[in-house]
Amino acid sequence: MSEDEFKAALAENADAVTSVLDELLVERDGSENRVIEAMRYVALSDGKCVRPFLVAASADIFGIERSASLRTAVAIELVHCYSLVHDDLPSMDDDDLRRGKPTCHIAYDEATAILAGDALLTKAFEVLSDPETHQDASVRSDLVLALAKAAGDHGMVGGQMLDLLAEHNRLDLAEITRLQRMKTGELIAVSCEMGAILGKATAHAHQMLHAYAHDIGLAFQIADDLLDVEGDKTEVGKKTSKDAAAGKATFVSLLGIERAREQAEMLVEQAAEHLQVFGNKADHLRALAHFIVNRWA
Amino acid sequence: MSEDEFKAALAENADAVTSVLDELLVERDGSENRVIEAMRYVALSDGKCVRPFLVAASADIFGIERSASLRTAVAIELVHCYSLVHDDLPSMDDDDLRRGKPTCHIAYDEATAILAGDALLTKAFEVLSDPETHQDASVRSDLVLALAKAAGDHGMVGGQMLDLLAEHNRLDLAEITRLQRMKTGELIAVSCEMGAILGKATAHAHQMLHAYAHDIGLAFQIADDLLDVEGDKTEVGKKTSKDAAAGKATFVSLLGIERAREQAEMLVEQAAEHLQVFGNKADHLRALAHFIVNRWA
Repeated sequence: MSEDEFKAALAENADAVTSVLDELLVERDGSENRVIEAMRYVALSDGKCVRPFLVAASADIFGIERSASLRTAVAIELVHCYSLVHDDLPSMDDDDLRRGKPTCHIAYDEATAILAGDALLTKAFEVLSDPETHQDASVRSDLVLALAKAAGDHGMVGGQMLDLLAEHNRLDLAEITRLQRMKTGELIAVSCEMGAILGKATAHAHQMLHAYAHDIGLAFQIADDLLDVEGDKTEVGKKTSKDAAAGKATFVSLLGIERAREQAEMLVEQAAEHLQVFGNKADHLRALAHFIVNRWA
Repeated sequence: MSEDEFKAALAENADAVTSVLDELLVERDGSENRVIEAMRYVALSDGKCVRPFLVAASADIFGIERSASLRTAVAIELVHCYSLVHDDLPSMDDDDLRRGKPTCHIAYDEATAILAGDALLTKAFEVLSDPETHQDASVRSDLVLALAKAAGDHGMVGGQMLDLLAEHNRLDLAEITRLQRMKTGELIAVSCEMGAILGKATAHAHQMLHAYAHDIGLAFQIADDLLDVEGDKTEVGKKTSKDAAAGKATFVSLLGIERAREQAEMLVEQAAEHLQVFGNKADHLRALAHFIVNRWA
């Protein structure tokens, strides 16, 4: 798959996700519509929708109907958006720019941003448990369980807690790896796992997708750290060099730029190996892995 | 059922809920345990667990196993606790006292409180979708869907948005009623509805429980407004007279103390009528309705 073909597939998926989000985030007549406006401001912004793409690409391996994989992908994007809104808050990372736009608490206010995040998270579980997502209730229930475990205190929220504490004590490579596995890796892993749940995949297929997701999750974070150092604010769409400014250890500060890049490339090769069992059905996942390490080029 | 019998049943239920919460909120070795400590600080505090009692009492009507109704009740309490933590934040209601203890952001810090709330909400969906809660996946999925709808932007979160906006524009009785139905009524209604979902109840039974919940939800809020005016801080365990101080319209400011009390009593009588179809199986729900209007006496 060529770079252009991949980028077209990614853009097509992002459009489809945005269109479902647009339908799901229903505006209301009452004054409470302010929080729905804020949810739409965040969710309908111009993201690449990498995580939803992982859901769709994993589900494609098992020949899942597009309507099911798309709604599942949307649930992942809702959780991702909620985490961005809350992480950007003044008491957290205090960011004022995201995807090239003012962050939610700047565009609205802090209280509205907290509520919008809360409602985006809640909406994700509403979407997954709705019979429209999948006719088999055991699939719906398994999707909810997997997402809740990945997003909660033993997953993404725990990782954000570690990240906040990292401002006060400098972490070593093992600690950074654990932090990033929790903060970003778990949601990436569950995105792939959802394809396997929808496909009622074998334990072996589950394991291979999990191993793939684990590797690209780490590669993704290293790529992000490289962007933070090398990218400029206009291109990246958010504040750069902020980890260095906050005195936080990153993969790049610990390994150096060259070794960090090599490490990311190595992870991506390793990730691709886990996909062999799926043959050319996993071409989208393979292409995504390469996109991750090359996006700063 | 006598007042003493009812209070014993309420206390027994609260103990059982606390004990399950204690098992579910598993501490970890890593530094992320700070957020779990904060979750435990909030969830294991000394609440009356009125909402979980509603789940258990509704489920009892249909002879549901205690293990199932208890875990479902715990999910409701997790959502209630998350809403308290976020509502108490400086950018929201800015409260420093709750259940007689410093609020979460005072005891920890703002970022930890936001994350603890996020994780409590997420945990609720983890609990409901876990096969340990109910063996039938369609029941689990329906519980998740009902809770997500009640808690989200069209329910509790939307109500909190209205409440924040109410500081700037004085609401009339119809608007206050709508605000309270969303902010507190929906979670109370879904607590009763969960008993009906667990019991695979008829549409008529669903309707009667919903009507009951609607009435006591409003009565509950009027009672809260009366407490805010008449209670003192030590007894109530949170700041009182704060609505008046914020210049917010309440049922009491709009109706006067006497008419507000009459209205609450009328609602409780009406609530009890909806329970006739269940005979003496609904004695706990009847007793709860009376407890709500009499707790300030």
